[in-house]
Amino acid sequence: MADLPKSIQINEEGPREGFQFEKGPIATSRKIELVDALSRTGVKQIQVCSFVPPKNVPGMADADDVVRGFTRQPGVRYTALWLNEKGLQRALAAGKLDVKGSISLTASETFLRRNQNRSMQENIEAQRRIIDMYKQHNVPVERGSIMAAFGCNFEGDIPIDRIVGLTQQVLDLASECGLTIKVFSLADTMAWATPGAIIRVVGAIRERFPALRLALHLHDTRGMGIANAYAGLEMGVDIFDASVAGLGGCPFAAHKSAAGNLCTEDLVFMCEEMGIETGVDLDRLIEAAQLAEEIVGHPLPGAVKQGGSLRRLREKVRAAA
Amino acid sequence: MADLPKSIQINEEGPREGFQFEKGPIATSRKIELVDALSRTGVKQIQVCSFVPPKNVPGMADADDVVRGFTRQPGVRYTALWLNEKGLQRALAAGKLDVKGSISLTASETFLRRNQNRSMQENIEAQRRIIDMYKQHNVPVERGSIMAAFGCNFEGDIPIDRIVGLTQQVLDLASECGLTIKVFSLADTMAWATPGAIIRVVGAIRERFPALRLALHLHDTRGMGIANAYAGLEMGVDIFDASVAGLGGCPFAAHKSAAGNLCTEDLVFMCEEMGIETGVDLDRLIEAAQLAEEIVGHPLPGAVKQGGSLRRLREKVRAAA
Repeated sequence: MADLPKSIQINEEGPREGFQFEKGPIATSRKIELVDALSRTGVKQIQVCSFVPPKNVPGMADADDVVRGFTRQPGVRYTALWLNEKGLQRALAAGKLDVKGSISLTASETFLRRNQNRSMQENIEAQRRIIDMYKQHNVPVERGSIMAAFGCNFEGDIPIDRIVGLTQQVLDLASECGLTIKVFSLADTMAWATPGAIIRVVGAIRERFPALRLALHLHDTRGMGIANAYAGLEMGVDIFDASVAGLGGCPFAAHKSAAGNLCTEDLVFMCEEMGIETGVDLDRLIEAAQLAEEIVGHPLPGAVKQGGSLRRLREKVRAAA
Repeated sequence: MADLPKSIQINEEGPREGFQFEKGPIATSRKIELVDALSRTGVKQIQVCSFVPPKNVPGMADADDVVRGFTRQPGVRYTALWLNEKGLQRALAAGKLDVKGSISLTASETFLRRNQNRSMQENIEAQRRIIDMYKQHNVPVERGSIMAAFGCNFEGDIPIDRIVGLTQQVLDLASECGLTIKVFSLADTMAWATPGAIIRVVGAIRERFPALRLALHLHDTRGMGIANAYAGLEMGVDIFDASVAGLGGCPFAAHKSAAGNLCTEDLVFMCEEMGIETGVDLDRLIEAAQLAEEIVGHPLPGAVKQGGSLRRLREKVRAAA
């Protein structure tokens, strides 16, 4: 466990991942309530919504209202997702978000076509246009990412060489434009990863690009989220996207099951029990997870919100002694 | 990943863990149906039932009928659980089970009292009586175990020294009686373990008792089951108890949530994807998991039964190419 980080940064993506994925209409006020509850947990970054066309993602039609409604807490960054210039303009116009850019490529061209209707080459061109836009608006760009980095439901396994090559392409794109990528995120968009793959891919990227700080975006469709996160920790990864109660999934990923993201409170539980600081109050986060479940109106996959933290049990044991 | 085993042995405990835990009455014929479905998956050991007093565990009142009803498949061991002499006699009388003994101590005296109404010392005496009984009936005893090895809802954290001491007590008990323990199982009965604890405890036991082959019995109450299994694999553990669809839990463990065991098909998925042989046909096992869910009549926690195996997706990708 030599490489375990002392602390990790969690990017809470529940509001965006969850409300993008849920079928039923969810009241704007309840979305705001969840963002505000998460703001009080100690988590340092919350992705509030995505600015995408309502015809593609109806659950995000009220994104502007959600942003207007929540209350900013000091020390918390509030982010959003967008896929094109129009989305970025909406995020900037909101005037309340911590708008940071990223350069994102996708390891599977078939998935890219289905998800964003672009070829690999068109996606690189689109990234160039997005970077121009960031520069025009003085939006900082320090993050790169690769989607479908561990496998694709339409293309199968992704060779490690391709991931290394795409990482280089992102860095080259940044460099051409006078930017420096500091954080690089590998996304297991369709839940193909197991711990062995995390170790191989993260290991290859670390070896080739030792200066990059690595992040993982994990899905739990096949129950591997927490084991993959642990393998990431062992490889020194210290930034994780996660989703309260395991909210979320990708509506374009071609499976019907509840394809939740790595669950935030389960991740916080594991880290805190292992002495890795998260800055998050687990019991408050569990309350936010229970709220999320109440809001969507059906059981969500996270386990610790049912099983409870051990802090409470330890307190009971001490009180009884 | 130097210590990852090449293959693992899975002890399927779904029928026992699940039907012990479920509240509603489940028809004997359906229990038999699940055992028979599991027999066709390639799993080498199935725990069919427990022989415990019906007043304590009503769901096991039909244990004798379940044993009478299932069809033995060659190459599969069929086991059962018992906690006292009477239970063992029922298992032997069934005439159809692979009856093997084990010596089991519990790391938490408070839990032991609630679960089996015994003190530590009474439990050691009870084990002596059980060993005598095994010898009278020529039942082989090659397995030792410690329950609540990673923490207890009533006593809190369990010091590693206590686990090492209890392991020694089991070995001493065996030795006094002319027995040799070959497999030693650590049970996270109340789901307190995280991967760090698995590595510490398994590491301490391996260092002190290098000749013992170690097994893990993991619960998923706090979502750590699969990460803990992975940490166990990294420490060279190659025997895992697991439960199809994540059936099960301990009715005495003082929490109301669905406290499933480590899910068999999620474990098989992880291992097969990492090149660790299980001998199990994952797609057949997924069918058995779906059957288990149908039998209990409510969603069960396993993920791969929803998310699907990657073999099927790889076949589709190849067919489309």
